[in-house]
Amino acid sequence: MNASEFRRRGKEMVDYVADYMEGIEGRQVYPDVEPGYLRPLIPSTAPQEPEAFEDIINDVEKIIMPGVTHWHSPYFFAYFPTASSYPAMLADMLCGAIGCIGFSWAASPACTELETVMMDWLGKMLQLPEEFLAGKSGEGGGVIQGSASEATLVALLAARTKVIRRLQATSPGLTQAAIMEKLVAYASDQAHSSVERAGLIGGVKLKAIPSDGNFTLRASALQEALQRDKAAGLIPFFVVATLGTTSCCSFDNLLEVGPICNQENLWLHIDAAYAGSAFICPEFRHLLNGVEFADSFNFNPHKWLLVNFDCSAMWVKRRTDLTGAFKLDPLYLKHSHQDSGLITDYRHWQLPLGRRFRSLKMWFVFRMYGVKGLQAYIRKHVRLSHELESLLQQDPRFEVCAAVTLGLVCFRLRGSNKLNEALLERINSAKKIHLVPCHLRDKFVLRFAICSRTVESAHVQFAWEHIRELATDLLRAEQEQK
Amino acid sequence: MNASEFRRRGKEMVDYVADYMEGIEGRQVYPDVEPGYLRPLIPSTAPQEPEAFEDIINDVEKIIMPGVTHWHSPYFFAYFPTASSYPAMLADMLCGAIGCIGFSWAASPACTELETVMMDWLGKMLQLPEEFLAGKSGEGGGVIQGSASEATLVALLAARTKVIRRLQATSPGLTQAAIMEKLVAYASDQAHSSVERAGLIGGVKLKAIPSDGNFTLRASALQEALQRDKAAGLIPFFVVATLGTTSCCSFDNLLEVGPICNQENLWLHIDAAYAGSAFICPEFRHLLNGVEFADSFNFNPHKWLLVNFDCSAMWVKRRTDLTGAFKLDPLYLKHSHQDSGLITDYRHWQLPLGRRFRSLKMWFVFRMYGVKGLQAYIRKHVRLSHELESLLQQDPRFEVCAAVTLGLVCFRLRGSNKLNEALLERINSAKKIHLVPCHLRDKFVLRFAICSRTVESAHVQFAWEHIRELATDLLRAEQEQK
Repeated sequence: MNASEFRRRGKEMVDYVADYMEGIEGRQVYPDVEPGYLRPLIPSTAPQEPEAFEDIINDVEKIIMPGVTHWHSPYFFAYFPTASSYPAMLADMLCGAIGCIGFSWAASPACTELETVMMDWLGKMLQLPEEFLAGKSGEGGGVIQGSASEATLVALLAARTKVIRRLQATSPGLTQAAIMEKLVAYASDQAHSSVERAGLIGGVKLKAIPSDGNFTLRASALQEALQRDKAAGLIPFFVVATLGTTSCCSFDNLLEVGPICNQENLWLHIDAAYAGSAFICPEFRHLLNGVEFADSFNFNPHKWLLVNFDCSAMWVKRRTDLTGAFKLDPLYLKHSHQDSGLITDYRHWQLPLGRRFRSLKMWFVFRMYGVKGLQAYIRKHVRLSHELESLLQQDPRFEVCAAVTLGLVCFRLRGSNKLNEALLERINSAKKIHLVPCHLRDKFVLRFAICSRTVESAHVQFAWEHIRELATDLLRAEQEQK
Repeated sequence: MNASEFRRRGKEMVDYVADYMEGIEGRQVYPDVEPGYLRPLIPSTAPQEPEAFEDIINDVEKIIMPGVTHWHSPYFFAYFPTASSYPAMLADMLCGAIGCIGFSWAASPACTELETVMMDWLGKMLQLPEEFLAGKSGEGGGVIQGSASEATLVALLAARTKVIRRLQATSPGLTQAAIMEKLVAYASDQAHSSVERAGLIGGVKLKAIPSDGNFTLRASALQEALQRDKAAGLIPFFVVATLGTTSCCSFDNLLEVGPICNQENLWLHIDAAYAGSAFICPEFRHLLNGVEFADSFNFNPHKWLLVNFDCSAMWVKRRTDLTGAFKLDPLYLKHSHQDSGLITDYRHWQLPLGRRFRSLKMWFVFRMYGVKGLQAYIRKHVRLSHELESLLQQDPRFEVCAAVTLGLVCFRLRGSNKLNEALLERINSAKKIHLVPCHLRDKFVLRFAICSRTVESAHVQFAWEHIRELATDLLRAEQEQK
């Protein structure tokens, strides 16, 4: 395919994409296919000779679309949102064309420098403390990671390196393994599974601290764990606080937990993967109070800030904490500027070596929406979740199971877990909307997340009527069985 | 921006991309900017109000392009190639529109299933042993990772879990830390820096084994290290063999190293990040002989197989080795099919949770090029590197420093390292072409990698004439100084 065929096919693809987005409401949100559906539909080996573009794009409708869960349908209320916007898609086209691998400043100066400045823009939108910004001569700064999982792991590894070096500095006889055996990281029992995974990968203990009645990590529970573990000869070194937990969007108490971490010399990492985007609105910024106690902070613009996946924003107060943990410099990656102190080699800030020009997406989205446009988008989602909350509160058969703060509503029928499992099963079998569940303590709960960029009140009202009808049918069937 | 504006802007962007690719030869391959160039060119905060698309696209030329290292210029001979093709760009547009996060089968069945089948297609192109394929009921299979670094790390972590479980099964009293303290991984002294990094992250020793005169890892050196370490009470568990090293594209001797790994119960991971693409050509497939001894194999179609970054292909013989190391199943990620045995939840195969629909790129590229088109592309690059090799051999001032097997030529002026550093400095200051160096033992060597999709003999001839002229100037200047 040459440039002139690309001009033609590219424009057809732009129309296909626009058609898909405009028509997504008409597609069933969750597919009908069964596991293994795809393999019989395509050849078992790649073709020897080139095929025509028409055949491929026709196969997209025939083979791919029937198996797609439509994350951007306004009837998709599962998991958390994943971002989608036209400006981000335009930027991704440009990113693909430039196609640089920005592992070092020299490998593409624009790729590195735009990222640093965009992370400063975003940090200022969130009113992050100055220490987290790169500015012209700051010691902190931001980096785009692929996911919150990677950000948590990078923070844990940096903290691990730091504590090992600190302990070895005072007791040179201590081996790394002897220290690692005693290291303990902490997160609330509501933290995302990726935190437990970071502990597994990093080879350190990760203890779940019981959250309180509001699913919040509090000082007392953390202190209790610290005292118990220190008394047992263990070495606490790392705490993950979550703002906007996955199950119910609860918030750990940073103003309590933060000072303890600082006092005890524990690295505090904040995971605000979903909720972080909301902090660009002044009325939600208070939820981030206490970030000043943290060593690292992360959230995913690719969730709720209209920057298509992947774009996970991470800031640290001391960039040397990251680069110190990872720096390896083979000659083929060295370049003449790297010791100037002025530049950033982002490969030392992340797990992989290669990286795309992802800051283009931030630049396009921030400029084409403006801060006000982004705030309006967040506010629409929050308004819709409160709309559902008040509908639920008007129906005595239902209960809302956790505070509705942002765009997530956790609810259930008053009754057994079995009843609620049956309700979810009916909802997801009908395939008019799509939800996933969670456990809150021993309760099976339905999560209703406002997800799509194009979701409006009418969709929420439709979903609610649908859920009510299914609940009525279910309760009648239960009644008849008795 | 609504769909109709996207139709317009998207088509403008398609033209911008096509113009960029068509005109790339006219752009200076390496930029003139100095560190810090970008920050003064853009505002210090995001705009409050939306800006016009025209302003942004104008800024791309004014602010971004002057700082871009043009990886797809036919005058770019640095690092290794990074893939770029129009079919992959078309697929990426579709990937962005579908915008699913394929962490589980249910999160988007098509995303998971196409990946499994594409990895089988690619595995068959390479003639991988059947055990690495998923097929309908295989125990192995492939997964797309973000980078070779991640593939190496995932393999090391899986191997670490496996050996810890094995040792704890026979000696239940052994702690994880006690085992980890004794674990040793191995790679040749030519292995990529990401291997050392995987050891650092995984908290295990990583020992570099001296390669032989051809920069190849041989049985004798490995055996010597194993014997020494076992005698010292250490526990060897993991070996990385490299096919196509970064410095000089040398190949470890799999047929020697493989049987030792199997005998000693060491996990063998093969890193063929660059060279792997060539194995689709029958004449290069012999370089992969011995893969049958490996537990995991990885290469990067995003380097040399026209599938834009990121797309790193990894296969394992036993998928349970990966899923066993990582599996954590919170309720919000469970779905009704997951215990059926028929389906794959790729989140258990990788470090992050989220993942894009990257197999679309493979599908588009494999079908629009056909296997023959891909083979022709590989062969063109190899032909061009041999063309440069023979030019170098005709000029007695130069020496070729390592066997030219695929698309990389390592060369230097016969003379001191300082002389060669000066030559590289002149080349990269002139900015007509772009190269990076490496060390081979104590020699400073220039690496000339055939990179661009559009590079032809004329570009190589131009580069050679340019290098010769600069060398002549340099040698004359040296002479005059004496």
